[in-house]
Amino acid sequence: MAMIGGGKDAFIGAVHRLAFNMDGQVEMVAGALSVSAESAIESGKMLYLNDDRIYTDYKVMLEREAAMPADQRIDFVTIVTPNFLHFEPAMMALEKGFHVVVEKPITFSLDQAKQLAAKVEETGLQLLLCHTYTGYPMVKQARQMLQENLLGNIRKIYVEYPQGWLSTLLEQTGQAQASWRTDPKRSGKAGCIGDIGTHAFNLAEYITGLEVTEICSALNVVVPGRMLDDDGAVLLKFNNGATGVLMATQVAAGEENNIRIRIYGENGGLEWQQEMANSLIVKWLDKPSQTYRTGGSGIGSLASHNTRTPAGHPEGYLEAFANLYRNFASVLQAKLAGEKPTAEMLDFPGTAEGIRGMAFIENVVAASSSTTKWIPFTT
Amino acid sequence: MAMIGGGKDAFIGAVHRLAFNMDGQVEMVAGALSVSAESAIESGKMLYLNDDRIYTDYKVMLEREAAMPADQRIDFVTIVTPNFLHFEPAMMALEKGFHVVVEKPITFSLDQAKQLAAKVEETGLQLLLCHTYTGYPMVKQARQMLQENLLGNIRKIYVEYPQGWLSTLLEQTGQAQASWRTDPKRSGKAGCIGDIGTHAFNLAEYITGLEVTEICSALNVVVPGRMLDDDGAVLLKFNNGATGVLMATQVAAGEENNIRIRIYGENGGLEWQQEMANSLIVKWLDKPSQTYRTGGSGIGSLASHNTRTPAGHPEGYLEAFANLYRNFASVLQAKLAGEKPTAEMLDFPGTAEGIRGMAFIENVVAASSSTTKWIPFTT
Amino acid sequence: MAMIGGGKDAFIGAVHRLAFNMDGQVEMVAGALSVSAESAIESGKMLYLNDDRIYTDYKVMLEREAAMPADQRIDFVTIVTPNFLHFEPAMMALEKGFHVVVEKPITFSLDQAKQLAAKVEETGLQLLLCHTYTGYPMVKQARQMLQENLLGNIRKIYVEYPQGWLSTLLEQTGQAQASWRTDPKRSGKAGCIGDIGTHAFNLAEYITGLEVTEICSALNVVVPGRMLDDDGAVLLKFNNGATGVLMATQVAAGEENNIRIRIYGENGGLEWQQEMANSLIVKWLDKPSQTYRTGGSGIGSLASHNTRTPAGHPEGYLEAFANLYRNFASVLQAKLAGEKPTAEMLDFPGTAEGIRGMAFIENVVAASSSTTKWIPFTT
Amino acid sequence: MAMIGGGKDAFIGAVHRLAFNMDGQVEMVAGALSVSAESAIESGKMLYLNDDRIYTDYKVMLEREAAMPADQRIDFVTIVTPNFLHFEPAMMALEKGFHVVVEKPITFSLDQAKQLAAKVEETGLQLLLCHTYTGYPMVKQARQMLQENLLGNIRKIYVEYPQGWLSTLLEQTGQAQASWRTDPKRSGKAGCIGDIGTHAFNLAEYITGLEVTEICSALNVVVPGRMLDDDGAVLLKFNNGATGVLMATQVAAGEENNIRIRIYGENGGLEWQQEMANSLIVKWLDKPSQTYRTGGSGIGSLASHNTRTPAGHPEGYLEAFANLYRNFASVLQAKLAGEKPTAEMLDFPGTAEGIRGMAFIENVVAASSSTTKWIPFTT
Repeated sequence: MAMIGGGKDAFIGAVHRLAFNMDGQVEMVAGALSVSAESAIESGKMLYLNDDRIYTDYKVMLEREAAMPADQRIDFVTIVTPNFLHFEPAMMALEKGFHVVVEKPITFSLDQAKQLAAKVEETGLQLLLCHTYTGYPMVKQARQMLQENLLGNIRKIYVEYPQGWLSTLLEQTGQAQASWRTDPKRSGKAGCIGDIGTHAFNLAEYITGLEVTEICSALNVVVPGRMLDDDGAVLLKFNNGATGVLMATQVAAGEENNIRIRIYGENGGLEWQQEMANSLIVKWLDKPSQTYRTGGSGIGSLASHNTRTPAGHPEGYLEAFANLYRNFASVLQAKLAGEKPTAEMLDFPGTAEGIRGMAFIENVVAASSSTTKWIPFTT
Repeated sequence: MAMIGGGKDAFIGAVHRLAFNMDGQVEMVAGALSVSAESAIESGKMLYLNDDRIYTDYKVMLEREAAMPADQRIDFVTIVTPNFLHFEPAMMALEKGFHVVVEKPITFSLDQAKQLAAKVEETGLQLLLCHTYTGYPMVKQARQMLQENLLGNIRKIYVEYPQGWLSTLLEQTGQAQASWRTDPKRSGKAGCIGDIGTHAFNLAEYITGLEVTEICSALNVVVPGRMLDDDGAVLLKFNNGATGVLMATQVAAGEENNIRIRIYGENGGLEWQQEMANSLIVKWLDKPSQTYRTGGSGIGSLASHNTRTPAGHPEGYLEAFANLYRNFASVLQAKLAGEKPTAEMLDFPGTAEGIRGMAFIENVVAASSSTTKWIPFTT
Repeated sequence: MAMIGGGKDAFIGAVHRLAFNMDGQVEMVAGALSVSAESAIESGKMLYLNDDRIYTDYKVMLEREAAMPADQRIDFVTIVTPNFLHFEPAMMALEKGFHVVVEKPITFSLDQAKQLAAKVEETGLQLLLCHTYTGYPMVKQARQMLQENLLGNIRKIYVEYPQGWLSTLLEQTGQAQASWRTDPKRSGKAGCIGDIGTHAFNLAEYITGLEVTEICSALNVVVPGRMLDDDGAVLLKFNNGATGVLMATQVAAGEENNIRIRIYGENGGLEWQQEMANSLIVKWLDKPSQTYRTGGSGIGSLASHNTRTPAGHPEGYLEAFANLYRNFASVLQAKLAGEKPTAEMLDFPGTAEGIRGMAFIENVVAASSSTTKWIPFTT
Repeated sequence: MAMIGGGKDAFIGAVHRLAFNMDGQVEMVAGALSVSAESAIESGKMLYLNDDRIYTDYKVMLEREAAMPADQRIDFVTIVTPNFLHFEPAMMALEKGFHVVVEKPITFSLDQAKQLAAKVEETGLQLLLCHTYTGYPMVKQARQMLQENLLGNIRKIYVEYPQGWLSTLLEQTGQAQASWRTDPKRSGKAGCIGDIGTHAFNLAEYITGLEVTEICSALNVVVPGRMLDDDGAVLLKFNNGATGVLMATQVAAGEENNIRIRIYGENGGLEWQQEMANSLIVKWLDKPSQTYRTGGSGIGSLASHNTRTPAGHPEGYLEAFANLYRNFASVLQAKLAGEKPTAEMLDFPGTAEGIRGMAFIENVVAASSSTTKWIPFTT
């Protein structure tokens, strides 16, 4: 595979490499790692790429790789550029016959997301959208328990994603991450709600299998001088009549990255949070609560498929991320081998989730400036 | 003192007795414990009241007690009837010269709350409103730390109160608590948001010292057949520019009573929840988080004053409740002795909080049925 | 009732008053509250005792109270003096016909404990020994679950009691608690292992219903200059073949009072700790773990009988303590009424536990100085 | 590198591959993956090894690899065979000029461990012993804080390692892990105390920098029919006068793998446990406790060097393991480049820890059968 973006100063590119290296299924052989030619070359060397596959332009890379013999060229590209640079390389990669892994949000606009989805549909290629939190075993377990209707009809969903790292005007200190993520030209219409709110939104829809149908939103710019929202809350209505609250903030000083969800049905509730990623608490209306554990007793097929070590060996963020890649790569391998991928392999986010995510951003931004309380969620 | 309501089948009356007994400052000598004469008498006997001070009508009780010599008559009354029966006995008690303890919400309407406040002002008597959660030592500590501005300007407040006990139509099973709390004639305009949402609202204003100025609310009746809201969420704006989210629900199946608050300022955040009532987590933007503990190191005067046992001996809900009574009784004793009560003694909720709470109920109910997003919070 | 010891500077006397006041069943009407006449009188006045029942000598008190008419004299005495002053007042009280509540350890020596037990037996009076931790609802629940054999044969018991308050030579600063507890003349043969190790020992035997039969112990004086052990560990063998480890320390700097026990049988394990007193974690060999909660679902009769508030209203140390008094008082009331006390009422520690505790102290001290590993536990 | 053992049915071999793949520094190019030729070949193919480097005999592998040109042959071997098969391949690998990674316990006997250490010394090659828990960032942080003497003189150490997976006679069901680990011929003199007790022992010495000098031990065979200990406790004396308790068990039904350590000094204590691997709790005698977090504020150089992702992205067991490999590989790379490895790189366990671990096993087993309480810890 090849990487677009993710050079030596980037954050998420390095995370991708840790994740796809882990299982030994994926080998990075090429890269256009930076828009700066110098950085692209230096980064490629640091990552032991062969000189002839260190590219300074992703278009050139996709052209040349596509021209190679099938057994030498890359199978897929991973796109880890800032948001505004997702769409074009993804489209071109698909057109050249490469599968695609892309960071979230999938594109810069909902319209682009739809075009990309159409292209995936047309080409029959695979696209993995990196909603990492869906890779945690206990998130998978929650999803499966709700698919099996263990809680009865879902009534209430609370999902939150508190961070504190943008409590100061970090983007003016030259910090690269803060810089592009708070810049509308590179990040898009939304700051916090696009960067992490989309993860919370995706987690709620992924676990419950429900869809948001109406929203009421309030975005804030808390730190003076910031160009995009750094905080927000959204009231939600779902297609089964359930309601919910989504909270995302990057100015909760002292918070790290504790995305957390609670879901209540007629019979009980589920609770999961990243800081205790290997526990899924199941509360019952009329029985003592239970704690399901990664690798532990009573775990279903979906979580088990995404677990590497026995119970009690904590699996973390990188393993969750690696699960996305492992499932994606397993589907590619199965298809190459003429086999049918299992349901467990196919359980990774793609263009459908990408469209929902972009719609979330656009709807939430529109709703935030509306004086009307409830706004339909449109795609 | 004497109790109005709180007979043998009541919930909160028994809790009051546990609370005011604890410190040995308060003696219950009279009571009109039920609207049913039979129950009033039976309850009085069970509580070892003298026969001549077991009343079947609170008006008679207030008349007769007021007519006794000062050293024999009661000092104050505690009113633990359903919401619709708070105002009249409270007004009459004040008129007869008795201090008043009253369960929340203070009255049935905002207008009554204002009348009661005026009467307290006029008589110079004391009124304690039982927002129990303000009695926890670590809630007091949080309040004091914010009074000392340790977090800088407050930016974000999340407060939540999830319960699950009304997940079914319990009120149709004859359960007494469910019956009156879901009945608009006895409970008021609001169900959940009045019963527990007011506690969450009070906690946020109490700890931060801020006031809500605008709200956006959405109340739900989740269980079909219920007459009042059993779930709701409110977006908040505060008078310093901070924003917040308040969540209250009684249909989170499996949840008990875990009221919880998180407050973030420029420098860090505070977190407190009832299930770990003796810990106050303080998170910092640039230092490791700290856990302050009841009776532990670094605790301020306000929390210390409200602590009975050394660190590590958990203080619970009854001790928090007893703190309200102990402070109230200490103020009465100080005044009797011609002394000035300390700031720590005076730190209990009264009519000001009562008016805010009733305004909260009325504003939230109005805002919930409005199609406009933001509604001013008026009192 | 009357109190012996527990004057204005004492710690545990005040705790007793908070505990027995709570339920309104017990009234303190007399006291010999200090060996200092001045302090005894001052303390009595502070506690609103009538002047004629403020005594400066417990012997005088017991004589005079015994001489009063039955409907006026006290029913029982509570002895909260330092350890060396338990035996004599307890014996005299029994001889005068009064029931007895006594702080642990029951006496100064095993031999005294046996004499006291014989006296209780002889008089038919009740004696309550204040192993407070047995009063927690979730400790009761653990006991009942093991009585019902839910874990199969018990194999392993870990019990620990870490404190840090004696990390410095506090007894030389004039601190009253540290002073007598580290003084062999007032505390007995043991320091830490007598003061808190006995609680841990009692908790293990109480919950499991097993008896220790052999021990290997190592006591330490960690802080130079201290006269008694301030730290220790004991390996345990039980009468069913189970083994265990008991750890008690008062020099774990930063620790408060987190007594904790874990018990494992063939099918699973139980875990309880005071810092999360309202949760009992039940781990299973082949099922997800469960969390039983005070007042929650699935709770047995023993815990329910010892719970005052609905689930989610934390009950703490004082409620646990009050449960001892409530059960003791209920037994006295039942007997007065000619009724048979229930099993739940009778479930409080007495002379049997007192003998086991004194034997524990004497055996552990002897074993600690032995060079032989295993020593039989004798009583 | 090449692997010896770790074929398709093995547990820890797969874990090693996940760990060394992660950072992309290590490539597995050869293997003698099983004593069964068939399994060795099948496993090699599954792992995409070239056919000519799939070996069925480790001796042949070491011979042939040693004969290859320096730029083609392996740099090091990883030995993941059962305990009785560590020593010979390790010795031979060193003799052939290869660095060595070996699972713990380092050898089958203390004497072998010493021989191996001498060989490492003689050859100047590197040996990594896989005490995985030393790779956790917060374990490193604890070590550094004690190196900086933040707690004052250390007084008390509690270390425990509870598992429940051997609560039944699993070894008779054909389970491969249980089978060899409970077999004295393959596992060694000790079962539980060798398998996991050594980890606990190593963790205590690693973090504190202290050495055990005397022990009192009691090992048990809890499950009838088992050939080696499955449970044990050891009282410890350290070379600075501190004392400790070590508990290890594999019959705590319901427990997973929660190795945990608490260390107390004059000024405060540290607490770390694997189930909350990214938090290090620091308790203070006279200040609120603090929670240090992986990647968070206030973290020292040692932990930072061993952290991959920003605070709040949980790092787990595989990252801890990968840290061992990353540091080991970094030292090899530095030496190849003629550079001096940093102190952070060199901070991984080797033969010194191996000798201590083997001595621990031999001393504990001897002490367990002794009737004398305290036994000197000899190496």
